Amino acid sequence: MSLKLAGDEMSAFLDQVFPQVRGMFAIDRLDDDLLVMRLHANEQHLRPGGTVSGPAMFSLADVAAYVATMARIGPQALAVTTNCSIDFMRKPVAGADILAHAKVLKLGRALSVTDVLLYSDGQPEPVARATLTYSIPPDR
Amino acid sequence: MSLKLAGDEMSAFLDQVFPQVRGMFAIDRLDDDLLVMRLHANEQHLRPGGTVSGPAMFSLADVAAYVATMARIGPQALAVTTNCSIDFMRKPVAGADILAHAKVLKLGRALSVTDVLLYSDGQPEPVARATLTYSIPPDR
Amino acid sequence: MSLKLAGDEMSAFLDQVFPQVRGMFAIDRLDDDLLVMRLHANEQHLRPGGTVSGPAMFSLADVAAYVATMARIGPQALAVTTNCSIDFMRKPVAGADILAHAKVLKLGRALSVTDVLLYSDGQPEPVARATLTYSIPPDR
Amino acid sequence: MSLKLAGDEMSAFLDQVFPQVRGMFAIDRLDDDLLVMRLHANEQHLRPGGTVSGPAMFSLADVAAYVATMARIGPQALAVTTNCSIDFMRKPVAGADILAHAKVLKLGRALSVTDVLLYSDGQPEPVARATLTYSIPPDR
Repeated sequence: MSLKLAGDEMSAFLDQVFPQVRGMFAIDRLDDDLLVMRLHANEQHLRPGGTVSGPAMFSLADVAAYVATMARIGPQALAVTTNCSIDFMRKPVAGADILAHAKVLKLGRALSVTDVLLYSDGQPEPVARATLTYSIPPDR
Repeated sequence: MSLKLAGDEMSAFLDQVFPQVRGMFAIDRLDDDLLVMRLHANEQHLRPGGTVSGPAMFSLADVAAYVATMARIGPQALAVTTNCSIDFMRKPVAGADILAHAKVLKLGRALSVTDVLLYSDGQPEPVARATLTYSIPPDR
Repeated sequence: MSLKLAGDEMSAFLDQVFPQVRGMFAIDRLDDDLLVMRLHANEQHLRPGGTVSGPAMFSLADVAAYVATMARIGPQALAVTTNCSIDFMRKPVAGADILAHAKVLKLGRALSVTDVLLYSDGQPEPVARATLTYSIPPDR
Repeated sequence: MSLKLAGDEMSAFLDQVFPQVRGMFAIDRLDDDLLVMRLHANEQHLRPGGTVSGPAMFSLADVAAYVATMARIGPQALAVTTNCSIDFMRKPVAGADILAHAKVLKLGRALSVTDVLLYSDGQPEPVARATLTYSIPPDR
């Protein structure tokens, strides 16, 4: 699947539609094969012990699936998450950013399905995995 | 299943273990049948259009499942979410609080499973549903 | 949500579109509030020890969600499952039928979401829970 | 993660613990990186149109996750599925076997988490994906 938006265009689009999370995420890589998104570990997302919280990891998986889908269909601010299943498998490393590796498994007319693996920056084993379905507005 | 913690004890416990979300949630009801938790709609959780974001709803479902489980086993700060599936079904009402209705379906030695329905305050139809599994430390 | 098909009409429709599972399931109750479907415990669905297998319980949850949705939109043989999350919580009682209690949580233009609780016949605690999403063809 | 059981030992173990599905599945590949399991398309698993049914695909994903886990911990007939999320993404090719590609993402003391992609034999795009959690008995 070829891309309709490059990484810097996508970053600008995200800042525009989700101003309230500006600075929270960054796009490390965006190409045909893979999207890598970064969650900057900061006070707001940490649990006691300094590890990133489950809801912050959910946010990262959700935005990564959105970005991976938008990159393929073009900017559609109205696409919405309809389903997510997420497994939390390991404790994140304290203080480390979280990286999401997202792959679009299906891009249909009405739905996209994206798999996401989450890693503590620098670690080989994933801390979580998620699959997200986005509903895509019919009028694109 | 009878309760080991009442609503006010649980609120105090939550403030202690999750100081970073203090004031975000409130316990509206906690008894043998049902837990009702409230997410106060405020700037931080809103999307453009004034509706509560998916990640904020995930946070509410997660903390509601935690509270419903803790109320039955006693305070165990170390219990961790291992799995969540969530379906976003309707757009929340702009500006309205979100209420989570949580029921513990299973309380085993090692795992709890909790169903959660999320409503915009005052609306009859749920905006989302979630099921969460918590892993419970063996040494309780 | 009022019903477009009664229990006996639905049974006839099921036999027609899924002839290969004829006799496997029965509709115990079908009204506006609830569908109760029965899986007849027989050799084919049993694991060693005489309990109903996970895949047989998945089949029951899947057909129950289908029936609950069809009863509301009218017969649409082409509706397909797009997502299921299922939690297996307790060992079923050996030799007992399994009953599915299904409720449609959302009926949209393109998707339905149905919650299902599964019980060993005569037991108060559920053996499993599932949520299923069906994609509904646009031309109904 | 190195393996405790080779493919032929695993096949013999499966025949012993699940005699009722003998001949339904085959192990095409089993090594440190990947398990490939095959579901033989036959009458019993087909829907009208000749495509493999959703419950048959669930069965394949379930047994593949079981085999991938058992290969790493040694034969534990008592391990049980506690959770599965599955997305059905494309219609399988009529009459084709289904292949499951399974990877164990986590092997803990009490739980394993396995990702499974399902393909119609010979096709590049997956027809479904699933993630399964197995509970592992403590006395291994």
